[in-house]
Amino acid sequence: MSNVTAITAPTQSVEANGIRFTYRRWGKPGGLPLVFNQHFTGSLDNWDPAVLDGLAREREVIIFNNAGVASYTGEVPKTFEGMAANAEAFIDALGLKQIDLLGFSIGGMVAQQIVLDRPDLVRRLILVGTAPRNHDAGGGEGHITPETAAIFGAMYDPPENLWLKVFFTDSERSQAAGREFLTRYLSRTENRDSPVNETVAPAQISAVGAWGAHSGERFAYLKTIKQPTLIVSGNHDVIVYTVNSLHLAQNMPNAKLILYPDANHGSWYENHEDFVFEANRFLNA
Amino acid sequence: MSNVTAITAPTQSVEANGIRFTYRRWGKPGGLPLVFNQHFTGSLDNWDPAVLDGLAREREVIIFNNAGVASYTGEVPKTFEGMAANAEAFIDALGLKQIDLLGFSIGGMVAQQIVLDRPDLVRRLILVGTAPRNHDAGGGEGHITPETAAIFGAMYDPPENLWLKVFFTDSERSQAAGREFLTRYLSRTENRDSPVNETVAPAQISAVGAWGAHSGERFAYLKTIKQPTLIVSGNHDVIVYTVNSLHLAQNMPNAKLILYPDANHGSWYENHEDFVFEANRFLNA
Repeated sequence: MSNVTAITAPTQSVEANGIRFTYRRWGKPGGLPLVFNQHFTGSLDNWDPAVLDGLAREREVIIFNNAGVASYTGEVPKTFEGMAANAEAFIDALGLKQIDLLGFSIGGMVAQQIVLDRPDLVRRLILVGTAPRNHDAGGGEGHITPETAAIFGAMYDPPENLWLKVFFTDSERSQAAGREFLTRYLSRTENRDSPVNETVAPAQISAVGAWGAHSGERFAYLKTIKQPTLIVSGNHDVIVYTVNSLHLAQNMPNAKLILYPDANHGSWYENHEDFVFEANRFLNA
Repeated sequence: MSNVTAITAPTQSVEANGIRFTYRRWGKPGGLPLVFNQHFTGSLDNWDPAVLDGLAREREVIIFNNAGVASYTGEVPKTFEGMAANAEAFIDALGLKQIDLLGFSIGGMVAQQIVLDRPDLVRRLILVGTAPRNHDAGGGEGHITPETAAIFGAMYDPPENLWLKVFFTDSERSQAAGREFLTRYLSRTENRDSPVNETVAPAQISAVGAWGAHSGERFAYLKTIKQPTLIVSGNHDVIVYTVNSLHLAQNMPNAKLILYPDANHGSWYENHEDFVFEANRFLNA
């Protein structure tokens, strides 16, 4: 095992589907790697290093920018089907025949699509703060919750304080956890990822709309996701409403759900020690 | 540590409030004991020995018949407030100043009331397959779900097959887990508890009705339960609907929720190894 961490892992790249994907890969080799699918407008640097390195102690972790995001400057597809196809090309380009898969927020929607497309590729699935097709978004336009629109539409000084509102509740305890997260988030000071450009958010928002407006029988497709799955959410997620995690757990054949108290969209960052313990235990089972 | 188990633990008794309570107590001494509150019409013998002994490896466990149930032949109160007052008298009679508390189904309603009455008595709380006041019961009469009325109203041969319907889903996997549970349930062959008499069910049903019809602001009282709490349910609980566990987790200040897949009211018996691990970890934290 090397001394590489989330702070020092080099940014690498690989070409597939005519796309040059940037990624970082580190951790304990030998088993299946865990591939992470990122949230709205997130780059390689937006993952919580505490979660990444906690999981990397027991397996290889792979984080990557899907097409068009941050250090790749191409085009972001307007559907999760398109993003999943690109993610699959990236995974294939690394020569991986089987992986464990994690998706956070819209990354969880991409992850569901990957499993639907390529069930044999994925051994175990972790879905954090995400939702099925035809999800509950409180009547928000384009299947975006009203709170999401308000929070991402506001200005923050410094800008990273956005994540205090996206990921944490307004309680004193949760905001304190949020400030600790921001310190970790900023702790990689060298070779940070490029910023995302202005084309990323609109395309990702379009994908959420297409996902939420799906015409099929509500939740029927979830019955076909047979992978052992760990679903995690905060008990007060205002970005992707908590009830969507209940929908997932009630309609997937083999999914255990964990909800954290006094927690918003970043429940797993707020409770990173417990999450790392639970996720390592789940993946090692 | 002794060799006593759920199968061999002697039935003892203690008098308090003019009531003679029967109970069994065993396990690893030294820390806080865990006191169990039983489900509808359950006696000392209805707990899953796998769960009891799994928890007894790391602490003392205490199971008891509340007033009027099974080996005590007095009167069952028609409210959970009344049952909680009797439970508190029992706990006091054992000389316990602080305990961890577990409640299953209607026992979880009693446990909530004990915490409300005596917050300093309870360090940590485990609520399995239960509901808050003003719970969702699918419009069933007297706040009993339609499935509960149908399942408890049917005849079974042998009679203990009732629990296959109450605790497990109809899937092949869950029913197989149910048959294993029945074997464990029947494995204590000597000094079993007395049967419950015909006065128990009507009084306990009255208590559910009074609990569900509570006139206060929905769920407001849950904010006052500050104990670290572990909430556990099946993803398809038809006896106490799963959504009630979401209500608990969303309205209690410090509650972690775990939902098990393909699981009904007996989710913790079906997943006893995982439950014992999670519960021991929670209680030892």
